[in-house]
Amino acid sequence: MSVQLNENYVNGFISDAEVKNIQPMITTAHNLLRTKTGPGNDFLGWVTLPFDYDKAEFEAIKESAEKIKKNCDVFIVIGIGGSYLGARAAIEFVKSPVYNNMKKDTPDIYFSGCNISAEALSELLAICEGKDVCINVISKSGTTTEPAVAFRVFRALLEKKYGVEGARERIFVTTDKARGTLKKFSDEKGYQTFVVPDDVGGRFSVLTAVGLLPIAVAGIDIDALMKGAQDAANAYTDDDISKNDCYKYAALRNILYRKGKTTEILVGYEPSNQLFNEWWKQLYGESEGKDQRGIYPSSVIFSTDLHSLGQYIQDGMRNIFETVLNVEKTGFELEIPYDEANVDGLNFLAGMDLNKVNKTAMQGTLLAHVDGGVPNIVINVEDKSAHSLGYLIYFFELACAISGYVLGVNPFDQPGVEAYKKNMFALLGKPGYEAEKAELEKRIK
Amino acid sequence: MSVQLNENYVNGFISDAEVKNIQPMITTAHNLLRTKTGPGNDFLGWVTLPFDYDKAEFEAIKESAEKIKKNCDVFIVIGIGGSYLGARAAIEFVKSPVYNNMKKDTPDIYFSGCNISAEALSELLAICEGKDVCINVISKSGTTTEPAVAFRVFRALLEKKYGVEGARERIFVTTDKARGTLKKFSDEKGYQTFVVPDDVGGRFSVLTAVGLLPIAVAGIDIDALMKGAQDAANAYTDDDISKNDCYKYAALRNILYRKGKTTEILVGYEPSNQLFNEWWKQLYGESEGKDQRGIYPSSVIFSTDLHSLGQYIQDGMRNIFETVLNVEKTGFELEIPYDEANVDGLNFLAGMDLNKVNKTAMQGTLLAHVDGGVPNIVINVEDKSAHSLGYLIYFFELACAISGYVLGVNPFDQPGVEAYKKNMFALLGKPGYEAEKAELEKRIK
Repeated sequence: MSVQLNENYVNGFISDAEVKNIQPMITTAHNLLRTKTGPGNDFLGWVTLPFDYDKAEFEAIKESAEKIKKNCDVFIVIGIGGSYLGARAAIEFVKSPVYNNMKKDTPDIYFSGCNISAEALSELLAICEGKDVCINVISKSGTTTEPAVAFRVFRALLEKKYGVEGARERIFVTTDKARGTLKKFSDEKGYQTFVVPDDVGGRFSVLTAVGLLPIAVAGIDIDALMKGAQDAANAYTDDDISKNDCYKYAALRNILYRKGKTTEILVGYEPSNQLFNEWWKQLYGESEGKDQRGIYPSSVIFSTDLHSLGQYIQDGMRNIFETVLNVEKTGFELEIPYDEANVDGLNFLAGMDLNKVNKTAMQGTLLAHVDGGVPNIVINVEDKSAHSLGYLIYFFELACAISGYVLGVNPFDQPGVEAYKKNMFALLGKPGYEAEKAELEKRIK
Repeated sequence: MSVQLNENYVNGFISDAEVKNIQPMITTAHNLLRTKTGPGNDFLGWVTLPFDYDKAEFEAIKESAEKIKKNCDVFIVIGIGGSYLGARAAIEFVKSPVYNNMKKDTPDIYFSGCNISAEALSELLAICEGKDVCINVISKSGTTTEPAVAFRVFRALLEKKYGVEGARERIFVTTDKARGTLKKFSDEKGYQTFVVPDDVGGRFSVLTAVGLLPIAVAGIDIDALMKGAQDAANAYTDDDISKNDCYKYAALRNILYRKGKTTEILVGYEPSNQLFNEWWKQLYGESEGKDQRGIYPSSVIFSTDLHSLGQYIQDGMRNIFETVLNVEKTGFELEIPYDEANVDGLNFLAGMDLNKVNKTAMQGTLLAHVDGGVPNIVINVEDKSAHSLGYLIYFFELACAISGYVLGVNPFDQPGVEAYKKNMFALLGKPGYEAEKAELEKRIK
């Protein structure tokens, strides 16, 4: 099993009766999901995606990835939210958080169109100088401001550098299957396009073309990634919590939430987990943070942040719990050198693999935080392979859906995301927003 | 004024009477700090540091920085917690979050010894291959596990590559003035050393040699940085909240906390703010997160995270407030291109500077989040210069001390950080921990 839940560090905070009592809610959530009768049931495409994805498109993604690898030094992925977090998380998790600084036979990969920063865009343009560039713009509607602006800038750059014909071979578009101006425009221009499915929301889209193309460009085995998700989908079909670690995670966090543990901290012990944490924060925060409820998702990397947020977690307000993502095999070994001088008094560790120290730090921290009153759910992941990552992605997606239904929300909408956009468009003078503009301007102080 | 507080987006959540009623507590905190009669009064060196820092050492730091710039391609800073966050935050804030990927006449700078990751250390060793390397190890005691292990590895690398004599010129040590094995060892070896002052805690140490050397190596003007802190120290001497934005920040967040706003989200609108957010999280989390109390510090970068945590902030549990760090001038301009096709419908923005769109996103978000029930404190920062950063650092340090006293804690200790370390040492078999080892091992499941 690629992923396993260890509940030993949460048991002291939750009785068996509590788990038993939430089982009917889990079963109900399971039925809502499996019979597609719950809220948001138009967005359940991710449930069966590991099996029924478009096989022809999948091969086309691999072909495009090979073409991109051959044709560029820098690959720019243009997208925001679910249109970049999954791919970036996968590249850092499987490859490296310093992927761009490593020697490799795949292109550097930068993410753009995920902010409105003149600095970020200017610096990326500078980085591209003298380099061969390909881009992948990812936007269902084609009208989201951040990626749209970046696409304008990079399309202009490519057309200037390679001509309209040359640019055509370097622009890859992931967008709506049929509707939307971006699809129409891409067809006219002759760009290679891929599909953002209608029934898969942005935060659940990493295993569609949205995530797969950039992940493949980084040299990650996307067959293994899909196989991992498939294995997870096969593993978590029983609604009985005692036989389903995925549902158990959903159950435990709902129990903890109702006891006042309103913030969940996802803990990694490798810097390569950091963007995965960010992906998870969107998945859970956007799925459950609505109707004035939901666990606030936060994250840390230990032991790094034991020296920043560690004090708070050990001794601060007791409204938090931790979920520890324990990658069992990192794929790296590093022996601690013996030091004649023993300046640091660490010769008792000489010859030990650094992974062993890291694991021991984790065990010591689990015990310390439990002693400090912080429940800890541990999720063991076999390794940082594409297969394990695919498994883990599906684990969290499915648990999120179940958890959201148990919480009593629609886990598949995000109505709150529009509020700032409406205000922004009005203030920017977008045609049609004239009345709102005047009202809003009065309130700016 | 480099830094100004705008309370207009929090006023709807706090009455004038509430501010008036907390004034005596602020005055008391002010007196505790200024007369050095509060808890933790052995650690107040940072209060007057912008004036009474060691001028001779400051010049030596600049000389070493010049030497490092000349002698290496890669500069490795070895430290954890307060021994790396300040420097890294400053480099990303003033220079760039992609500093290492930019063309420049200063060395690449990597941070090591801030985790126990075999992957991170192995990859950094690979990056150093064929490059000239200098290191700066930062550790008051010299015995903290993470930096100690990294120092073993990189000292061995340098001595192998350059010989003991050559390595001596490439190793810079920031440690205790007199005590500690690392100081003694460095003197024996002939390394250039700098001082971690006794009366400045790690999280308040960025304006000591701890932060200054790496910051200077990045080509940042450390005179301007100190001048900024000095200007802030001069600006915030009045205990009257209405005349002191720094104290006002401390007052507002304490009022909000007592109303159930138990999580504070520090918001930046530039990717270059991200590490500053992390520095702030340590400063506040470690200073206030104790005795089962304290605001939980979290952070986001917008508009990026409006597409991940935005939904939660708009509509989730109402136990949060935001503090928005608004950098007024980014120093970059980028005009949105006109697009004949207008695929995205954004031609109404053509010709507009991207900064204007970003500022409007901020205004739209402030109004949306206030409408959603989230109080917003806005802190305006003039620009991303070293001077403004120094000002901002002092603003947050001073506000943190006042805030901690008002909360009723010792803002300068961190007793909880030891708990995991004790367990880890015992489990690793460190001599002297035999009894604890057996007890702990029984509890690992």
